[in-house]
Amino acid sequence: MDVMSAPAIQRNDNCFVLALALLSGRAMIRALSHMALIVQKYGGTSVGNPERIKNVARRVLESQRAGNQIIVVVSAMSGVTDSLLKLAAEVSEHPTEREMDVLLATGEQTTIALTAMAINQLGGSASSLTGAQAGISTDGVHTKARIANITPDAVHRLLDDGNIVIIAGFQGQTSDGRITTLGRGGSDLTAIAMAAAVKADLCQIFTDVDGVYTCDPRVVKVAQKIETISYDEMLEMASSGSKVMQSRSVEFAKKFGVRFEVRNSMNTNPGTLVKEEENGMESVVVRGVSIERNQAKVTIDDVPDLPGVAAKVFDAITKANIVVDMIVQNVSWDSETDISFTLSAADLPKAEAALKPLVSGLGDKVELRTQSGIAKLSIVGIGMRSHSGVASKMFTALANAGINIQMISTSEIKTAVIVNESEIENAARVVHTAFGLDA
Amino acid sequence: MDVMSAPAIQRNDNCFVLALALLSGRAMIRALSHMALIVQKYGGTSVGNPERIKNVARRVLESQRAGNQIIVVVSAMSGVTDSLLKLAAEVSEHPTEREMDVLLATGEQTTIALTAMAINQLGGSASSLTGAQAGISTDGVHTKARIANITPDAVHRLLDDGNIVIIAGFQGQTSDGRITTLGRGGSDLTAIAMAAAVKADLCQIFTDVDGVYTCDPRVVKVAQKIETISYDEMLEMASSGSKVMQSRSVEFAKKFGVRFEVRNSMNTNPGTLVKEEENGMESVVVRGVSIERNQAKVTIDDVPDLPGVAAKVFDAITKANIVVDMIVQNVSWDSETDISFTLSAADLPKAEAALKPLVSGLGDKVELRTQSGIAKLSIVGIGMRSHSGVASKMFTALANAGINIQMISTSEIKTAVIVNESEIENAARVVHTAFGLDA
Repeated sequence: MDVMSAPAIQRNDNCFVLALALLSGRAMIRALSHMALIVQKYGGTSVGNPERIKNVARRVLESQRAGNQIIVVVSAMSGVTDSLLKLAAEVSEHPTEREMDVLLATGEQTTIALTAMAINQLGGSASSLTGAQAGISTDGVHTKARIANITPDAVHRLLDDGNIVIIAGFQGQTSDGRITTLGRGGSDLTAIAMAAAVKADLCQIFTDVDGVYTCDPRVVKVAQKIETISYDEMLEMASSGSKVMQSRSVEFAKKFGVRFEVRNSMNTNPGTLVKEEENGMESVVVRGVSIERNQAKVTIDDVPDLPGVAAKVFDAITKANIVVDMIVQNVSWDSETDISFTLSAADLPKAEAALKPLVSGLGDKVELRTQSGIAKLSIVGIGMRSHSGVASKMFTALANAGINIQMISTSEIKTAVIVNESEIENAARVVHTAFGLDA
Repeated sequence: MDVMSAPAIQRNDNCFVLALALLSGRAMIRALSHMALIVQKYGGTSVGNPERIKNVARRVLESQRAGNQIIVVVSAMSGVTDSLLKLAAEVSEHPTEREMDVLLATGEQTTIALTAMAINQLGGSASSLTGAQAGISTDGVHTKARIANITPDAVHRLLDDGNIVIIAGFQGQTSDGRITTLGRGGSDLTAIAMAAAVKADLCQIFTDVDGVYTCDPRVVKVAQKIETISYDEMLEMASSGSKVMQSRSVEFAKKFGVRFEVRNSMNTNPGTLVKEEENGMESVVVRGVSIERNQAKVTIDDVPDLPGVAAKVFDAITKANIVVDMIVQNVSWDSETDISFTLSAADLPKAEAALKPLVSGLGDKVELRTQSGIAKLSIVGIGMRSHSGVASKMFTALANAGINIQMISTSEIKTAVIVNESEIENAARVVHTAFGLDA
């Protein structure tokens, strides 16, 4: 298992003395003893039943016995959160958010206790901490709190006493002692934030896939696991539908420079390392191909090309709580223009309801047109910035396959196109091949 | 509902000014506003499913809307603790006690959130607190911690803001922040200790019976609910098998002078008030008749009447973790004596195993004899102290019914006899009648 051979502290021998001087006392001890401090996060599926918890316990112990200090962050067992939500719905139509957090926090608390027990049963020494006990302070926005700061004193004390520390993901407490939860992707965020707070050498996000792939292997059979990916690429892959992790956790990791590895809790395959951009990473032009299905597009045709029209449109959309993805407005050659945007197909009825009154007020010629049954294909790579011809290579591959492009949107490290949903799999395969990503 | 008419503060008008001067600021405000501070405790059956939690929510709101401040202490929903224990057993043969507490504490945490949600759904304003958040500090003996002190600052803050405060029973935390649980009867203890800490006017223990009865109504159909009972009588009734509450909570209430009412969560019948002994309470000679089934007795015959023999016997029994009930040793008229004691029939094999080696070392004549299939009948009443002839009245009633008494044991406010299990129900009925307890 490569966890065992995880480097204690990456260092350049010439800078060793200086580096030591800059290290905290604890980090210095780790550096001198070649001991690494590793944060491991296991999701709901990985701890989904007692057998799987015992499997996690074995993995954690192996990592410790290889000479490392281990902090484990766990989610609620899969299904538990849904059961709790169902209970809440049975006592209240609109459960108070403060109380929802008290309720949901029991899910992870159950897992930390069981995981610690399982490790202790195997002869290890593990102690559990709730989010509050682990020193995770958040703002007061119940059910989607943001981490304000972490005071990991209790974590350090337990580590110093030789314990494996098991921390409840997804939760924290406000400065006045209320229990909060972090919302979607909260357990990943706990792991990454805790790794930053304790200056961990490595953060491992264990999930039910082997890592991040060049494309969804169910679509592109020759897709390869990516060994290393930059935060920005990971963010674009995530927001383009390869939902291994929520963007939020990746953004946090980028901000605090936490390198983390996404890997599979059910096997010992090496995963994907996500880290800051480095020289050499640009030599790969396209890191991966990402697919997002079930999209819809809305076009407002023949809009008067006047200031403030786009603002009105997206103000109405925002008020309807709809998240918009691509927005395209073409240069206008006369007094009218077209505005198009894409959104999740599920939100289309809400968007139509929000826009109809607005459109009828913009003039007789203005028309609202919608289409579902479309999908988005994106290519992502920081190498794109320094390579010309990336977009044309993509468009050519699609043209050769007879696939029509309906919309185009680009960012510095991403090129995205909208195609018919029926053609998305073929589109992914030909683009994957065109950029030399096939295994 | 009589909760609504609960007296704000019991007072004698002549002493009113003095009483006010002695009251804390908060209590003074309550006294002046005729508002009572009530602690209500609901057990696992009373909150056993969402419908029952909604029922509790309605009751709590009624109590508040009658002009009272309400603190609610809840147990885990019935069945939840067993499910958690089963989960623990699936990951570990000997779960760490520290982690067992983290696990079990989720049971009550779930109930507090659901109860608060249900109250809020009905238009009330409720906020939940875990044991730790409610300021309940305990010693560090996991799974059976003792309450060290209570700092109810958060409770007062929430009450002052007009909230109903929902507190998780059965749990607390150590001074260094570990989660603890209080063991059997822990939720009752939380309610009574919290009532003492906030100087509540009344503590109501809601359960699935209407109160304390003069005898088990399934045995003595004419048994009556007791309106008022002293702490000492309640203790003797509890330790004699009328297990409405654990002795521990009653002892705590006695020590801190917390009067509490035992009542039924499923109806609005008045319950039984448990309080300090008062003049007039002694006029009732026997408060109730208590039955304990499934007992066994152990006799060691012809023991040398020498110092230290009884010590050896009960030392062996204690080391085997057996709780002994009655102990009888008769005056010896020669150099030998008999020692008898009773215990739960389930513990009899353990007791035999513990005593056999000891008995064979005491001499050839010494014999170990055991008998199961017996039961204990007790009469309890503080009035007994000042009335002679209580015991003889009991023995006569039993003799007239042809029931043989096998052992007798008395305390200041209790007389207990051992009879054959097959005769216990008849014995209870004739004694109940003899002391004028029949409705």
